[in-house]
Amino acid sequence: MPNPSILILPGDGIGPEVMTEVRKIITWFGDKRGLQFGVSEDLVGGAAYDKHGKPLADETMAKAQNVDAVLLGAVGGPAYDDLDFSVKPERGLLRLRKEMDLYSNLRPAQCFDALADFSSLKKDIVAGLDIMIVRELTSGVYFGEPRGIFEEGNERVGINTQRYTESEIERAARSAFELAMRRNKKVCSMEKANVMESGILWREVVTRVAADYPEVELSHMYADNGAMQLVRAPKQFDVILTDNLFGDILSDCAAMLTGSLGMLPSASLGAPMENGRPKALYEPVHGSAPDIAGQGKANPIACILSFAMALRYSFDQGAEADRLEAAVEKVLADGVRTADLLASEGVEPVSTSQMGDAVVAAL
Amino acid sequence: MPNPSILILPGDGIGPEVMTEVRKIITWFGDKRGLQFGVSEDLVGGAAYDKHGKPLADETMAKAQNVDAVLLGAVGGPAYDDLDFSVKPERGLLRLRKEMDLYSNLRPAQCFDALADFSSLKKDIVAGLDIMIVRELTSGVYFGEPRGIFEEGNERVGINTQRYTESEIERAARSAFELAMRRNKKVCSMEKANVMESGILWREVVTRVAADYPEVELSHMYADNGAMQLVRAPKQFDVILTDNLFGDILSDCAAMLTGSLGMLPSASLGAPMENGRPKALYEPVHGSAPDIAGQGKANPIACILSFAMALRYSFDQGAEADRLEAAVEKVLADGVRTADLLASEGVEPVSTSQMGDAVVAAL
Ligand SMILES: CC(C)[C@H](C(=O)O)[C@@H](O)C(=O)O
Ligand SMILES: CC(C)[C@H](C(=O)O)[C@@H](O)C(=O)O
Repeated sequence: MPNPSILILPGDGIGPEVMTEVRKIITWFGDKRGLQFGVSEDLVGGAAYDKHGKPLADETMAKAQNVDAVLLGAVGGPAYDDLDFSVKPERGLLRLRKEMDLYSNLRPAQCFDALADFSSLKKDIVAGLDIMIVRELTSGVYFGEPRGIFEEGNERVGINTQRYTESEIERAARSAFELAMRRNKKVCSMEKANVMESGILWREVVTRVAADYPEVELSHMYADNGAMQLVRAPKQFDVILTDNLFGDILSDCAAMLTGSLGMLPSASLGAPMENGRPKALYEPVHGSAPDIAGQGKANPIACILSFAMALRYSFDQGAEADRLEAAVEKVLADGVRTADLLASEGVEPVSTSQMGDAVVAAL
Repeated sequence: MPNPSILILPGDGIGPEVMTEVRKIITWFGDKRGLQFGVSEDLVGGAAYDKHGKPLADETMAKAQNVDAVLLGAVGGPAYDDLDFSVKPERGLLRLRKEMDLYSNLRPAQCFDALADFSSLKKDIVAGLDIMIVRELTSGVYFGEPRGIFEEGNERVGINTQRYTESEIERAARSAFELAMRRNKKVCSMEKANVMESGILWREVVTRVAADYPEVELSHMYADNGAMQLVRAPKQFDVILTDNLFGDILSDCAAMLTGSLGMLPSASLGAPMENGRPKALYEPVHGSAPDIAGQGKANPIACILSFAMALRYSFDQGAEADRLEAAVEKVLADGVRTADLLASEGVEPVSTSQMGDAVVAAL
């Protein structure tokens, strides 16, 4: 059997910098743990636009379809702000999600002990926080038709369509319940069923799926209340299940609670391929951070932990994922901090590359 | 000239309880300040459904169109959870917003000095916070067609339509810029222009309107980042301008930052009527709180401050609004607390009615 394959798409801004650190980690697992990967690299986002005139070349798309896992850095930046919508860097990422059919986006929001002081929230509200947001990623208003800007009378109208079929809701719901079974057996589903019919269907299907998981406690919450509860008492949640647009906003809100945006990974999973592995893309929750790009200041941990999720969800190496996560915790406990993590004066920040080296050393 | 008219719609849950306190305030302004109002009362939400089989009777709608201001308590509750979508309590409120064409929803998020300790957020992040969210309230995905649950192949699909015309965006934007002129002259507009064409049009129109307000500094932010920044550093904002759905979520998030959800009022304003006053509805941001309804525990301040907004925006009584707001601040500074405001042990909560009396006494 050939080595499992990984396609690295560093993308824009701090993407390439943090990905360099992930490469060190991949090398370490090959040398020290006998986990060899076939690694290739390509362009996405603004970087792809600069070369090909579009944010994802067809060849790159084809490659992504044929690897065991894609690791992506970040896309976008002010240099591309004035591009036409159809070639914006973000469209490269959205094309990957859609064509790989990565319907289940897992976004853990975890508060690292060593960083609890760093949250905007009071310590007792976030200490020990460990929730998982499951965001539907291939449908909803991100992809629904009709969409566009149209003439209407003597003015224009901007239109997007929120659209969910029963099967789209069902498969996302299943992945949330499966996760809950391996966690604290609670799912809270968030929508606006009081205002949107798509939310009514969402609630109905999720309730039906729940019947297959009698051990899991299901609750429903309106998404506005969900945002409020995330700030008020986030530890009430275990798994949060929500749609593409609400998931975008709620997961950023949850990420910020932990005070560790530079720390948070994500996995986007699709259906199993022939070899049994799910289609998968792993990326940090943070963006391309153009303001600090190229300065060696970025925190590579979100991207490193995204690779840990790849070990767990794509390569069935749960123990090795634990090892990598433990190494990150140790480095933090030792007080190693990139600039984004400096809660207090008097601590000298380390560079992106020093942080990567520290994690390797702790492995 | 007849006295200005107010229609009171107490609604469901704690709505009637908090409205009783507002009536005390209205009476005080009549007796002591010579501000006489013609007050009538009617049903909305579940209370209207119980009587008429729908959440807003046509007669009530007609009355609302003909008064100078509507004061609404809250709608909804578990007793109505299984009702058909078309007669849900919320539909009564949405009908009022839509038919009165209340396109500009003002939601201040203010941290009261006496309550800064009560926020989930660290004190320095929220102390002195005073931002204003302007939420477009009559369009977007709340009202766009087509909408519904349809058969498609052998399954169903839930559809809603996000839809904004240039003129809808423009009038909401104008109201935000007008407010900013009387505040700190900053507007941050939030959408998802990187993903939604309706967001692209939104950004374009807001930018155009900004040209009429050269003194106001305009910035744009993706709504997911907006949620994050609200938790990270809310004091960076002055006026936030956003659409109906994002506004729903972001304003609940902002409300929670202040730790004073039971304290926050809102105004929903439309075009000027013949008498020059805007169409207007005032309501607390909090909901019907069925868990504490009927127990005399509810905090009436959000509803009282909504009446203060009515004094300011409908009745041109800015000084009297200031007086009422100052009375609320004084009561809080004196340590009077309803149960929702009990951050620390050893404080005895007052009842809804005691809180109302305390505000009257402080006037
Ligand atoms: C970059 C952007 C298209 C993307 C999204 O809106 O999904 C991002 O915000 C995210 O959450 O992954
Ligand atoms: C009650 C509900 C229809 C309403 C909304 O979604 O607008 C509420 O959440 C609000 O924010 O006023």
